[in-house]
Amino acid sequence: MADKPAKSNKLKARLPRGLADRAPGEIAATRRMMETIRQVYERYGFEPVETPAIEYTDALGKFLPDQDRPNEGVFSFQDDDEQWLSLRYDLTAPLARYVAENFDALPKPYRSYRFGWVFRNEKPGPGRFRQFMQFDADTVGSASPAADAEMCMMAADTMEALGIPRGSYVVKVWNRKCLDGVLEASAGVPAEKSLTVLRSIDKKDRIGLVGVQELLAGGRKDDSGDFTKGAELSIAANNFITYSLTPMSLGGIYRMDILTPRDELQAAETAPRPPFDFKEYRSRISAGLGGRVFPAVLEAGLADLKELQSLVEIAGYKDRIKIDETVVRGLEYYTGPVFEVDLTFPITGDDGKPVRFGSVGAGGRYDGLVSRFRGEPVPATGFSIGVSRLAAALQYLGKLESKPEPGPVVVTVFDQDRLADYQNMVANLRAAKIRAELYLGSGKFGPQMKYADKRNAPCVVIQGSDEKAKGEVTIKDLIIGAELAKLEKGREEHLQKQAEAQFAVAEEKLVEAVREVLGRHGLTSD
Amino acid sequence: MADKPAKSNKLKARLPRGLADRAPGEIAATRRMMETIRQVYERYGFEPVETPAIEYTDALGKFLPDQDRPNEGVFSFQDDDEQWLSLRYDLTAPLARYVAENFDALPKPYRSYRFGWVFRNEKPGPGRFRQFMQFDADTVGSASPAADAEMCMMAADTMEALGIPRGSYVVKVWNRKCLDGVLEASAGVPAEKSLTVLRSIDKKDRIGLVGVQELLAGGRKDDSGDFTKGAELSIAANNFITYSLTPMSLGGIYRMDILTPRDELQAAETAPRPPFDFKEYRSRISAGLGGRVFPAVLEAGLADLKELQSLVEIAGYKDRIKIDETVVRGLEYYTGPVFEVDLTFPITGDDGKPVRFGSVGAGGRYDGLVSRFRGEPVPATGFSIGVSRLAAALQYLGKLESKPEPGPVVVTVFDQDRLADYQNMVANLRAAKIRAELYLGSGKFGPQMKYADKRNAPCVVIQGSDEKAKGEVTIKDLIIGAELAKLEKGREEHLQKQAEAQFAVAEEKLVEAVREVLGRHGLTSD
Repeated sequence: MADKPAKSNKLKARLPRGLADRAPGEIAATRRMMETIRQVYERYGFEPVETPAIEYTDALGKFLPDQDRPNEGVFSFQDDDEQWLSLRYDLTAPLARYVAENFDALPKPYRSYRFGWVFRNEKPGPGRFRQFMQFDADTVGSASPAADAEMCMMAADTMEALGIPRGSYVVKVWNRKCLDGVLEASAGVPAEKSLTVLRSIDKKDRIGLVGVQELLAGGRKDDSGDFTKGAELSIAANNFITYSLTPMSLGGIYRMDILTPRDELQAAETAPRPPFDFKEYRSRISAGLGGRVFPAVLEAGLADLKELQSLVEIAGYKDRIKIDETVVRGLEYYTGPVFEVDLTFPITGDDGKPVRFGSVGAGGRYDGLVSRFRGEPVPATGFSIGVSRLAAALQYLGKLESKPEPGPVVVTVFDQDRLADYQNMVANLRAAKIRAELYLGSGKFGPQMKYADKRNAPCVVIQGSDEKAKGEVTIKDLIIGAELAKLEKGREEHLQKQAEAQFAVAEEKLVEAVREVLGRHGLTSD
Repeated sequence: MADKPAKSNKLKARLPRGLADRAPGEIAATRRMMETIRQVYERYGFEPVETPAIEYTDALGKFLPDQDRPNEGVFSFQDDDEQWLSLRYDLTAPLARYVAENFDALPKPYRSYRFGWVFRNEKPGPGRFRQFMQFDADTVGSASPAADAEMCMMAADTMEALGIPRGSYVVKVWNRKCLDGVLEASAGVPAEKSLTVLRSIDKKDRIGLVGVQELLAGGRKDDSGDFTKGAELSIAANNFITYSLTPMSLGGIYRMDILTPRDELQAAETAPRPPFDFKEYRSRISAGLGGRVFPAVLEAGLADLKELQSLVEIAGYKDRIKIDETVVRGLEYYTGPVFEVDLTFPITGDDGKPVRFGSVGAGGRYDGLVSRFRGEPVPATGFSIGVSRLAAALQYLGKLESKPEPGPVVVTVFDQDRLADYQNMVANLRAAKIRAELYLGSGKFGPQMKYADKRNAPCVVIQGSDEKAKGEVTIKDLIIGAELAKLEKGREEHLQKQAEAQFAVAEEKLVEAVREVLGRHGLTSD
């Protein structure tokens, strides 16, 4: 017991789970990507507006999907006047507050965009962060399907502006009215289970048809062994939802009650889906409903979709914006059309098999969110891009350079007493708009050259006492130096490169000589 | 009692105190400003790195000044494993964690920059926010005053790149070593009061010499009537600090113990201060110390400052970077040189009298912050810009345009049944890179024109049934329309403008005609 080592007093440098730092390459790539998105949104007439990260908890509401820990999906804390504050979990709820607060001053309909960090107090997992960036656009004050259609077209234009070729993405649209209001009326789902059912359906891409059916029935055990309790629907309701309301296995040929094997079901659902057909949908639903009446809310939902489809077709987006019954989205506040942008090109999954990249953005109509503050109907629709996911997709496609910028010219320090001289050389280089820095460490020549390498410096500047006496500086071209190391010594090319790799110039020619070296490598500065 | 009106169920749309939304003009202006800062920092060889807004509370530490509510200067909450998390209150503490965590992989010295929101759970006040943006640069791994000098020079270059003329700003430098370590040894200030004393001195610009003396003695009542308890120093210690260590009234002619009237003291301190003189400083401190020994830490502090001054002079920054004994800074983690950028031009204060704009950025050496994690010395220095304050200063100087971009072309809707036609016109305009939008509301012609005005639209596109029959569209130039309203009717100029203000073109000429209208007003798009 006495031999137990003393606990170190050192603090541990670590980040909480689900949070990450961002490196130079990622920062630069994201900045370029966001600039392109911004240009598209501006062209559509949207204007920027930003809200803070902290809001009153009641103003945000709780509309989150997948609250693994109920009441804890949101980071919250009490203010000194006992009122609860929360970090925003998306950019839509704060926008609703903003519009309600500034209602009379804003043009209506009001189109705006914004990007920013959002926070979710969820169980972190691979690729699942507790802080992530969203880029949103919203139109508040228009109930017209034309506003939803515009969102979809803007999403499509954004993908193409970013270099994702037509055919490699699809904007999929469905309508909450075709699911939400129908569940109770037609499938016998009690209102309090409605959201659980929607969210179960929304997980289809991840857990498959069988998984959804398990969640609609008694419950499901995931790969980690965690058990999620199911909605405990009847087999009839389960079948109506999975095979009539959302045709998960294409036409409903497999039925839970005939105990089709798991494998067979899984094979069926990966088969290509035919394009959506309003007529086929009607007859399928009618059949599923048996004698029950075709609900009015479903009619309204289909009418929205028809109008949206017609607008999209006339505008020439037919091949990119498609009606798709499988789109649900997990957020509670959607009330009408919902959409998501899926990338359709295959990538190699963790198991080596090809998988689809999946969704990089999503949105929908949320007619109730602003109304909560106003006590009058305020229709609204919006679209949100998951910035990191989209950046990852673009990098995969080679459409987003993520390597860091070339490094600065490094002025080395030979004589600590002459620091001011070296500082001065650096200042002269910078005055000539050349990216340059002084070595500020205490290492000798070896460590300084290693430092320059690590900084990806194109060249270093050296002035020892010999050079100083002659009024000269030595410039070492590190890029040619690296090439030189690969050549045979003594040959003509080697000799010539050697002369280029390191040479002396008069002190007053420093800037000129460095500029020449940068020019050799196409690194001339702005 | 029974007549009390029923409480409304409506949620109130409001932001917690100390938080603010940002409008389009401010967003665009800040973006341009940050781009300029970024370019300067990149030229100095700094590279971007970003950390999340949430960190472990212990990793951030508590180094904040002015904790009106002790232990509450930081927004904190517990994670599900009971560990405490906090929102970052600056960008320096998270950087220290980042460097410690990635120590071996980073080049050393390590120069980096970042901007982002920081959060303070403080009493909000005018111009004092609980969420604000900082733009930081740091050099970790160099103990050399050359690193501090570089920070100061970069700050100066940044001011000039932003258009602040030389002479309108000054980078003021002092050294914590000349205050911090001296207090106990020389002024008899007990260690636990040292920080209170420093922070009292730091408030000098706001509360004046008298206010500082009150805080060093028994305490001070502020304008709002709130009383702050003082450090309860002896009159001798109080005088040593205010007149010898930091010569607040220029040479110490006024003494607290001779009860100089408030007015006279206040007049004395607004008089111009002579340039700092090492010799005068030494003799003043020696006199103040009486027979006591001149402390070694003070010698070391002066040596740092001398070297910094010499580097700065040789690099040609003498007129912009100045030694100034009044610089303290309130953050606890500073250990050496501290600096701040002050704007020196007068602005008109709330009371109509000219005041100085004051500090827009500050920084200093914090040699202990990374070491907390490493258990070995890791010297570091950094500089932080207050983004909103600097933007406000630039706007005041007319160096930062803050008016919003020109609005989009608005395509009006005359016939709801032909929404697709109108949508199509908009799509054609956008395809030609013209910023355009469809009116998505339900208003008739009047409200649509009001909307276009509110959107700052240069022109609107109109197609009623008459125009449709002729295959035409009408374009209304709103800018000329506004000019027209000011001219006398019937005159030649009026007639000519009238023809320009509204005209019809064939549908297929829409893009061409709109481009011509934009051209008239210098609004041709990218």
